[in-house]
Amino acid sequence: MSVLIVGSTALDSIKTPHAENPRLLGGSASHAAVAASFFSPVKLVGVVGNDFPKKYLDLYRRHKINLDGLQLRPGKTFHWSGEYEANMNNRRTLLTELGVFETFTPTLPRAHRDTPFVLLANIAPALQHHVLDQMRRPKFVVADTMDLWLNIALPDLLKLLPRLDGFVLNDSEAHQLTKEDNVFIAMKKIHKLGPKYVIIKKGSHGSILSGPRGYFICPAYPLSAVVDPTGAGDSFVGGMVGYLAAARGLIDTNLRRAMIYGSVTASFCCEGFGLTRTTRIKRHDIDRRVKELEQLTKF
Amino acid sequence: MSVLIVGSTALDSIKTPHAENPRLLGGSASHAAVAASFFSPVKLVGVVGNDFPKKYLDLYRRHKINLDGLQLRPGKTFHWSGEYEANMNNRRTLLTELGVFETFTPTLPRAHRDTPFVLLANIAPALQHHVLDQMRRPKFVVADTMDLWLNIALPDLLKLLPRLDGFVLNDSEAHQLTKEDNVFIAMKKIHKLGPKYVIIKKGSHGSILSGPRGYFICPAYPLSAVVDPTGAGDSFVGGMVGYLAAARGLIDTNLRRAMIYGSVTASFCCEGFGLTRTTRIKRHDIDRRVKELEQLTKF
Repeated sequence: MSVLIVGSTALDSIKTPHAENPRLLGGSASHAAVAASFFSPVKLVGVVGNDFPKKYLDLYRRHKINLDGLQLRPGKTFHWSGEYEANMNNRRTLLTELGVFETFTPTLPRAHRDTPFVLLANIAPALQHHVLDQMRRPKFVVADTMDLWLNIALPDLLKLLPRLDGFVLNDSEAHQLTKEDNVFIAMKKIHKLGPKYVIIKKGSHGSILSGPRGYFICPAYPLSAVVDPTGAGDSFVGGMVGYLAAARGLIDTNLRRAMIYGSVTASFCCEGFGLTRTTRIKRHDIDRRVKELEQLTKF
Repeated sequence: MSVLIVGSTALDSIKTPHAENPRLLGGSASHAAVAASFFSPVKLVGVVGNDFPKKYLDLYRRHKINLDGLQLRPGKTFHWSGEYEANMNNRRTLLTELGVFETFTPTLPRAHRDTPFVLLANIAPALQHHVLDQMRRPKFVVADTMDLWLNIALPDLLKLLPRLDGFVLNDSEAHQLTKEDNVFIAMKKIHKLGPKYVIIKKGSHGSILSGPRGYFICPAYPLSAVVDPTGAGDSFVGGMVGYLAAARGLIDTNLRRAMIYGSVTASFCCEGFGLTRTTRIKRHDIDRRVKELEQLTKF
């Protein structure tokens, strides 16, 4: 089945202690869409300006990503610039130019409204609502978020949560949302806000699922070189939803393995700047690391 | 087979935002010995003063811990006092009174020198050396350490590492020792210093083994209430060595499962002050959580 992915489509200029890479393809929807494309047909919903390089449109197309929902507007593409510290965990934003993203309204092409799987990648909760308002009974809806929306759009986000099947956030965001230090108590509190499945991302420490079948402790693939972690969380959730949409059977049964596939897809994302590494791999590269993870966790 | 455990035997006064508990049984060797005692016969080597409560000697005995190597000296037992912050991750030492521990020399009773499994729990590396000097060809030697020894006794520690089969340390100590941010590169560097097995503890994020069979990603048991994490690392390594000493077959084959048992034993330690929770459980309580962990990690 296919996946509708809405989020930001951006140009990222990324600095690390080792290198500087201007105007890479970035944004939550780009990372998630490429990750999901290894498993399922993807429909991308976003906006770009007329400075958006043709090579990036070609990149989407090579991944067979449907671009009917990608709006092309006069003006500049959303441009984000950030710098990582040596440990690759702390980053600071150097620049945010919203460009055409500032007035983005994710209006869906008619054909998109029946898509069974929906990923509301990181974007303002009001826009995530707007997408759901247009959908016809999707089978599975999952949303990601970021600290910014907890700070400036919390009421919108709280109204979104009961509309979701799954909610994905990182450990510090879970703490910010619930004021809980303990991640398992935090997940219990988030369930009460609506979502049946709560997934907490912990970066290199993996992720945790809480759902009707209890917890699942999902490992991260061991990486001895992290080149650029930008988009890893988006790749995780994209790979996860892509795998889910392709799998037969119940969500409940498939979600654990879907998280493993998301985790592995995210590991490739970290090994190159922007999407450079992810766009060079094939499905069998992902399958190989999933097999490795099986071995790495067996006891 | 039996396990020799040398380390500190102390009285811990522990403060958390919720409670204050004076003069609990503590110390690296006490935690490790009680943890190991669920699996194998344990010989404890340490020192206590004449203020050491009889009830704690009785506690050791209830766990069938051999006390022939526990020295009783005139003076005060090592007393440590610390306070935890609300998140239970940060703690500060309020007081350290070494007492009889200051002049401790771990002289082994003759009968202890053939013990096949040796755990050099957290204690000065010079004392860890002294124990190994007295041992006759042990089958498996593992050592734990702490940041203090990296700061004040690094040359001793570096000379100890080639004498070990396994070395256990936490992620921040691994960073301090190797100057590496990446935990997998840090483990490679530590292998070069001697130990065949390197185990990095990551608290609530679990632990990682690096050995001849590659990595093993060991989960932590999910806890929604951490009462007092003091001694959790000692319980982990104690439970691990205790399990190893009881298991048939190769260390290489058993070490992963041994880490799981250590991890679960440590989870009980966190659920009460000092050893209060650990001393109330039975082996079947540990087995039950190990089964749960199998379910929690299956995909």
